[in-house]
Amino acid sequence: MGQDLPLLLSAALGKKVNRPPVWMMRQAGRYMKIYRDLRERYPSFRERSENPELSYEISMQPFHAFKPDGVILFSDILTPLPGMGINFEIIESKGPIIEDPIRNLNQIENLKELNPSESLSFVGQVLSSLKKDVNNEATVLGFVGAPWTLAAYVVEGKSSKNYSLIKSMAFKEPGLLHKLLDHFAKSIGEYLKYQIKSGAQVVQIFDSWAGQLSPEDYDIFAGPYQKKVVDIVKAEHPETPVILYISGSAGVIERMAKTGIDIISLDWTVDIEEACKRIPSGIGIQGNVDPGILFGNKESIKERIDNTFNKTKDRKYILNLGHGILPGTPEENAQTFFEHGKKLTY
Amino acid sequence: MGQDLPLLLSAALGKKVNRPPVWMMRQAGRYMKIYRDLRERYPSFRERSENPELSYEISMQPFHAFKPDGVILFSDILTPLPGMGINFEIIESKGPIIEDPIRNLNQIENLKELNPSESLSFVGQVLSSLKKDVNNEATVLGFVGAPWTLAAYVVEGKSSKNYSLIKSMAFKEPGLLHKLLDHFAKSIGEYLKYQIKSGAQVVQIFDSWAGQLSPEDYDIFAGPYQKKVVDIVKAEHPETPVILYISGSAGVIERMAKTGIDIISLDWTVDIEEACKRIPSGIGIQGNVDPGILFGNKESIKERIDNTFNKTKDRKYILNLGHGILPGTPEENAQTFFEHGKKLTY
Repeated sequence: MGQDLPLLLSAALGKKVNRPPVWMMRQAGRYMKIYRDLRERYPSFRERSENPELSYEISMQPFHAFKPDGVILFSDILTPLPGMGINFEIIESKGPIIEDPIRNLNQIENLKELNPSESLSFVGQVLSSLKKDVNNEATVLGFVGAPWTLAAYVVEGKSSKNYSLIKSMAFKEPGLLHKLLDHFAKSIGEYLKYQIKSGAQVVQIFDSWAGQLSPEDYDIFAGPYQKKVVDIVKAEHPETPVILYISGSAGVIERMAKTGIDIISLDWTVDIEEACKRIPSGIGIQGNVDPGILFGNKESIKERIDNTFNKTKDRKYILNLGHGILPGTPEENAQTFFEHGKKLTY
Repeated sequence: MGQDLPLLLSAALGKKVNRPPVWMMRQAGRYMKIYRDLRERYPSFRERSENPELSYEISMQPFHAFKPDGVILFSDILTPLPGMGINFEIIESKGPIIEDPIRNLNQIENLKELNPSESLSFVGQVLSSLKKDVNNEATVLGFVGAPWTLAAYVVEGKSSKNYSLIKSMAFKEPGLLHKLLDHFAKSIGEYLKYQIKSGAQVVQIFDSWAGQLSPEDYDIFAGPYQKKVVDIVKAEHPETPVILYISGSAGVIERMAKTGIDIISLDWTVDIEEACKRIPSGIGIQGNVDPGILFGNKESIKERIDNTFNKTKDRKYILNLGHGILPGTPEENAQTFFEHGKKLTY
């Protein structure tokens, strides 16, 4: 069963597999020396993520190093913004800066609908190259940011600690925010479809900042727009597995399960055994391993992987971290994570 | 029933009250103009929190402005550190800097046992003045940081994003970390007893960073040391209510309930109705209101308070935010929070 499909895709589709697939969020990046070397030559993040040769090369770095079961596009959740008329820059160690933060109706009404094949053709190019070259030895993953998280960026104008600007908008001018969220949902849905057509076999939606919402606000500003994105994708690609990740999601995992996604990617702040009970059995689970464990040693890493795996044996499970791998992680510890992960068996 | 006791203390003791008491975490601070003015004259945070006249004056600012049901000592969770031989400075907008971060056994073995009446007499002075002057029109609260959170500060050396240094110690040299946590638990227990003897009628333990631990690590590095602090306090003051707060606690609230505390202070990322089901009925609940709601308007603030209160009617409940009030919060919105909170009735 599923012998013709790569392991991660098979598992995500619910087919019987011999071991859980393994990949890492943010598996290409700063913790790899080869990436830091390339960054010296190409210091602009936007160039690295928007020049198709560079994005392709970086996407493949962890594949060459560790042979993970998933190869994810090297890109950023903000990459589609310029195609909607929102310009941004990423300043090393400071994060993204939105050129002209979105604060009023006029700005929202002037946003362009995203035409991915026009403004994001470099992404299509990278995904089709990855699909061809990875050649089903791994599964190619695409990804997007969810509407709430994109809205938080463009309203705040930068990485925020307190989200006071977008919350002010949410509580004072909810109609304005809903217009923005709706625009993003449609555009992001189109963008995911474009990624799938270009080669992505599994896609992940990051609503990184939805964990900053109370569950009552999640039901108004995050959940419905996650669902809208999923509905747009599933209407055309019902068979493509969709993963949803939220950082700080322990209070809303039941809600995540109701958005039409196939797999919930858990952070590490919830016991995966309890999460399995709270999430309907048809929905798969990914992640949950504290990325901080990779600052330990081989023994602690292996033990944590085993503990996590043992709690998920009767579930569809994809081994992953509970958050992106952290800068400063020793590469040999990432190696251990992949090596040990591949030794697991059902 | 409880007529002689202030409202918050009565409610915390489980006595029948006519309305939930209301106070705010970090209710004295940057959002108040009177505090910012004082800060101009006394720019050193350590001076403001360690000079008993200033600490007293600041503690009383919100009492004069809003008449909350609780008056909490103006201090910092790091304040006891110098009494253990760990020096620190707080740099405005950058947070605390530990002079000589704790990284090895020798440093841990050289830590002094805290003698609060010697090194923290200014805290005793402030609490006894507050107790006298507040005169049971409100309840006087003391507080401490829990061992894990203090350890995270002194090992990382500053506010951390990823906690890679303390996690490295936890996973590679757990014995070392346990020694440090044990030292803090004993000292912090003594410090709380000193606060109670000096005038604190209710005390709150902040394990602000325990939400960064997976539940499995929480059970090793956070929970047992919270419990140890509580045991030390309860041995001498079984009647003093103890509140426990953790930021990002949605995945561990059942565990918090097992530490011997009386009241769990919830952040806003969990539905309080679900939390009430997960927490044994004998344990009280505090908080849960998103501090971001105070960037909304009067109507949204009142509605949120009502929604929260309505979900807790059969529980011991203390109205509070789910986190400290945020810098930049309009003072009139804090006013609305207190005013509306005091209009609730059982």
